[in-house]
Formats: sequence, structure tokens, C-alpha cells
Amino acid sequence: MELKKILETQSEASWKKYIPTLSIDCVIFGFYETSLQVLTVKMKDQEAWALPGGYVQKDENVDDAAIRILKDRTGTENVYLQQFYTFGNLKRSESAFEAYDDSIWNKQRFVSIGYYALADFSKVNLIIDKYSTACEWHSIDNLPSFMMDHRTIFDKALLTLREQLNHHPIGYNLLPEKFTMPELQKLYEIILGKKLNRGNFYRKILRYDILTKLDESRKGGAHKAPDLYSFDLEKYNNALKEGLKGSW
Amino acid sequence: MELKKILETQSEASWKKYIPTLSIDCVIFGFYETSLQVLTVKMKDQEAWALPGGYVQKDENVDDAAIRILKDRTGTENVYLQQFYTFGNLKRSESAFEAYDDSIWNKQRFVSIGYYALADFSKVNLIIDKYSTACEWHSIDNLPSFMMDHRTIFDKALLTLREQLNHHPIGYNLLPEKFTMPELQKLYEIILGKKLNRGNFYRKILRYDILTKLDESRKGGAHKAPDLYSFDLEKYNNALKEGLKGSW
Repeated sequence: MELKKILETQSEASWKKYIPTLSIDCVIFGFYETSLQVLTVKMKDQEAWALPGGYVQKDENVDDAAIRILKDRTGTENVYLQQFYTFGNLKRSESAFEAYDDSIWNKQRFVSIGYYALADFSKVNLIIDKYSTACEWHSIDNLPSFMMDHRTIFDKALLTLREQLNHHPIGYNLLPEKFTMPELQKLYEIILGKKLNRGNFYRKILRYDILTKLDESRKGGAHKAPDLYSFDLEKYNNALKEGLKGSW
Repeated sequence: MELKKILETQSEASWKKYIPTLSIDCVIFGFYETSLQVLTVKMKDQEAWALPGGYVQKDENVDDAAIRILKDRTGTENVYLQQFYTFGNLKRSESAFEAYDDSIWNKQRFVSIGYYALADFSKVNLIIDKYSTACEWHSIDNLPSFMMDHRTIFDKALLTLREQLNHHPIGYNLLPEKFTMPELQKLYEIILGKKLNRGNFYRKILRYDILTKLDESRKGGAHKAPDLYSFDLEKYNNALKEGLKGSW
């Protein structure tokens, strides 16, 4: 079915199924090797990339809609998912639509609730649905052009990670279960947007007493095999309740 | 005009004027003497109190709607106002409405965007409009019963202040221009929900180098007149950009 036809058929069904005005956009982060990645989709007939998104069903909590959208796009559940901001500028869609039209679902004015997700990179399936032509990870160091205000939504999500780093289990949810100290430092550097002194970082993170040093090291590579660590989840969660002391 | 009539007349006008589904609720904080206060209203025909709120006009940014609502309720502009969370539970209105009805403005399902405001207590006018019977400050230590999920909205706003204390100019916006050190400490204690050691607090806040000690002291009272301080706004804003170092 061609896209125009799909959209017309969908419009009527959408008015019945979803509450109007509201959309959800998801900023799905994953950590791969030493790079923070974000999941992007390309919609049919669009040049620019988009964040994965969707609508809220009439009989559904907004949070549950976000969980459903995330699952539809990545095939994963039980992912750390947090609402972070709602985007309601009148002209957020200006480049995508000539004018708002209250009678056509896709042309109404949407206010979008932003959620960020911290996904396990290795477990995410990239699902291309009938409205899209591509679904890919992009390194946040090398982002493509986004449609509408999706770049603004992404920037706000990253800023939120930065502000919440001492209060939310961000490291735990982005890193694999076992990780090296350089990997943890790299993740902190990316989120904070600055280089950290290696010695200071090690001392500080160890003083928090939230890591367990494992009896194994990372095999392979020419250098001495680096030690592996994991989070002590109970101590980590307790420390986050108060907020990790100090800044980076 | 009786309330029922007002609501019927309003319903048709509201569908024309506002975007559906969305409301705004404002948690307006003010600091009075040594107590943090929140502005509450009582709607006609309601027992419980409510947060001041309103809707978003079709040709209006969501942020501008919040500014307008705040001005209508308090008569003040240029108030520090921040969106903090959007409340979208299906049953957030269960106690207020028997069932949602898409055809009546006031009975549709609303998703509400929460904004907190840091107001200058002495400059706020308490404005009672035609939908309400009272508009009052309440100390956050002694809150009344709230309608719908407004208590949840309040709790989230206070938690947000706590998390943002090192990144946003919260002290500056809640305190009068000139304040004493015990007043500043009290404000921090209320927001953080715990007592702070006086000596540690003084040392820490002075080390930030964000305060100016004034050549005057607070007159009146039996004790030695306490020194007055004000924020050095340039230094304060610079420090907040990085985040104040350390926790309280």
C-alpha cells in the first residue's frame, strides 16, 4: 500500500484509538565499545532521521505507552526508562507540516513527551516497521540531521543524563554486567562532556564503595589484562538515594 | 451564573480555544519567614484543594501557557518557572470524575504538564477567579487534602527542587534580595528534608564564593543583629553551570 493511502486509513483509526494532541518520543541510549549511541529511525518519504515515537492509547497510562513503543521498536522490555521533558513549542513541526489541521491525525498539533531509555546495546533488535525504511544506531559524536525538533529532544535527554548522573543508576544500566575501569571512566566522560583525570576518577569512584572487583580480568589485547568490575547494586542504590557526593 | 451553566457554556468555547487532552498545573513556591509555602486554590463545588492550573491555547507555546496561567493567578511575571514532569496516569482523575467523556471539555481525559515556580512571596497577589472560592498559601509542613493527583504533583515538584539544588538558582529565586545565613540554611534544610550542621553549612556555602556579605545587618530582635548577605549573581550562575560541588 502506498504511503498516502496508509496515512488516510490510519487517520480514522488513530482518532478512535489514541488520545489527541499527545505523542511520545524516545531517546534510546546504548553503550557500544567506548561510544555512546542513540537509536534513530528514518520514516518513509523523509530525508532526515527521527527518534522512535508513537501515541498514547485512550485506555493506557502514558508511561505504559512509552514502554510499549520501546518494545515495538527494540523488542526489549525491563529497560530503564524515564520521562524527562515535554516539548510543546507551537512551531516544533514547522519544517514538517505546512499548517496544522485538526481533522487529519498526522497534521494536528502534537505536544511530545520525551522519554530516555538506557538499553543493553547487545540485546536490542532494530525493528523496521511499515512507516519506516531504516532503524540504526548512531554515535552521539556523529549525529545525522534530525527532523522536526528531534535534535532539541536529544540534546535535552543528554543534559538530563548529565544532571542525574549522581542520582540515577545510569552507569549500571548502560554498561555490561562486567566492565573495566577505563570503560566506566569513558562513559562518565561522554555524559559529562569533558575529560576526567584518571587518578582522581579511580580514587573517587572507589571511595563510593559501589563497585565489586571481580576475580577475573579482560582477556585479549597486547597490554596487561585490565581488571573487571561490576556494580554492587545494593550499595549503589543506597548511595544514589542520597546522591553520590561531589561532582566530577 | 450557577456553576453548571458556566461549565456548559465554557465547554464549547474551550474546544475552540484550547488544544484537547492537555492541562497545566503549577506548583508555586514562596518562602515566608522561615517556611516554604505553596499556593493552593479551592474550586467551586470541591472540598479538596487544588494546584492552580489551566489549558494551552491553540496558537500558544506550552511554556507561554504556563506563564499566562501563573500571571492570571498571581499577578506576577518574570518569575522563575520550570517544567518538571508530565502526569499521564489513566486514573489520575478517578476520584473527580466517574468516567471520561470525549464530548464534554471538563470530562475528557487530561494529561497534565507540571511547572514549578519560585515566586517572591511578598509580591504575589492571591487572585480568586470565577471558578474558585479561595486562593491561599499553605506551609508545606501542613498541607491540606488535594484533589485528583495534585499531592503527587506537589511531591514530585519538591523532589525536583532537591535534585536541582546544585544546578538551578533556587536559593536566589526564593529568598529576598538580602537574607541572613540562618535563613539560607533553613531554606536548604526544608528543600533537602533534613537538618544540616551549622558550621559545615557556613564553611561550604562560603567556599563556593557565590555570596556577597553586605555592610548592613538585620535590625530588631534581642540577639546580636545577624549579618546580611546577597547572591553574587555572576559568580552564582557560573558555579551552577558546572554544578555546585559536593552534596549537603
